[in-house]
Amino acid sequence: MRVVHDGIELRTKGKGTYEITDEVQAKIDNCKIDNGTVTIFVQHTSCSLTLMENAAPAARRDLEHFFEKLVPESADYEHDDEGPDDSTSHIRMVLTRTSETVPIVDGKMQLGTWQGIFLFEHRRAPHRRKVFVTVIGE
Amino acid sequence: MRVVHDGIELRTKGKGTYEITDEVQAKIDNCKIDNGTVTIFVQHTSCSLTLMENAAPAARRDLEHFFEKLVPESADYEHDDEGPDDSTSHIRMVLTRTSETVPIVDGKMQLGTWQGIFLFEHRRAPHRRKVFVTVIGE
Amino acid sequence: MRVVHDGIELRTKGKGTYEITDEVQAKIDNCKIDNGTVTIFVQHTSCSLTLMENAAPAARRDLEHFFEKLVPESADYEHDDEGPDDSTSHIRMVLTRTSETVPIVDGKMQLGTWQGIFLFEHRRAPHRRKVFVTVIGE
Repeated sequence: MRVVHDGIELRTKGKGTYEITDEVQAKIDNCKIDNGTVTIFVQHTSCSLTLMENAAPAARRDLEHFFEKLVPESADYEHDDEGPDDSTSHIRMVLTRTSETVPIVDGKMQLGTWQGIFLFEHRRAPHRRKVFVTVIGE
Repeated sequence: MRVVHDGIELRTKGKGTYEITDEVQAKIDNCKIDNGTVTIFVQHTSCSLTLMENAAPAARRDLEHFFEKLVPESADYEHDDEGPDDSTSHIRMVLTRTSETVPIVDGKMQLGTWQGIFLFEHRRAPHRRKVFVTVIGE
Repeated sequence: MRVVHDGIELRTKGKGTYEITDEVQAKIDNCKIDNGTVTIFVQHTSCSLTLMENAAPAARRDLEHFFEKLVPESADYEHDDEGPDDSTSHIRMVLTRTSETVPIVDGKMQLGTWQGIFLFEHRRAPHRRKVFVTVIGE
């Protein structure tokens, strides 16, 4: 049994979902662990992680529109030091996920057919985001 | 330290919460790992995973009604290839969970008194669902 | 590779977010595992876990106010054996998290600059809460 850490950096272009499935799988390929789990951990509080339907972009647009309505920027927040998307970003992060753990068999993540791994950016402005990838196994 | 993977298959009868606590514990019993963690991972994007109160069915009905109102089928979604419950299923999945990791001590999951593990089906129609169970420990 | 379990007990004073980052890190320090992951698991269904912005208390007040509006106590719930905050507590728990897994490098959790770990109490009355901490690594 071993533990291998690695990281993914990505530049987002503002609000939206950014697929990182291939990048995570590439990190697993690198460390040659065939059997175990991978934990994906987002090191931020204004973006988040989610599994999502990976085929239809319309499904992701519906998800993004839903969050615009559920946690509207127009609402009256106390914390707005960094603009009207400040508290909304944190709340949308809390409503989604920060870490996910996915099983690995024969070196491959055991995702379902339609499952992709996405970083969910909640900020209007482009950001540089860091995702930690930890593989445990043999 | 070892890693053992196993799977649970269940047939849902449409929307609702389906307890799988005993099935997960049975997989742990099978692999004879006394001390470690179990990761439960749902391989779908139109159903999800949640811990929930396991005693009062009324609490789960309230949960299910809440999600019907929070993510209504009547809303105007772009992605409806598979019907009015298509985008709502993905959004409800994102708002809940896909993976959970639970500690194991003396061969038993360390759930609180009222905690049960549930698959949360978001589709109207019955579905066959696959849940991955990965035990890491000694 | 080893597995070490430990627990944190805290007394909440009613609804709100309670930071436990230092307590979790202290458990990791105790077990002298430098390289691995820590899983934090809340053993309750009426409080939950979340990563959150750890610097601005206003951001947390906005989060708490948002949940009061999103899952209002005034709503008409079937399950109210323990008062108007009974079903709302379970629903707020489902919408947030029960377990999180955080990477450990050189004995330290790899949290981002602004990430803190919080117990999110959903009950009006003070409660004694148990959080399980499991460190896996070497």
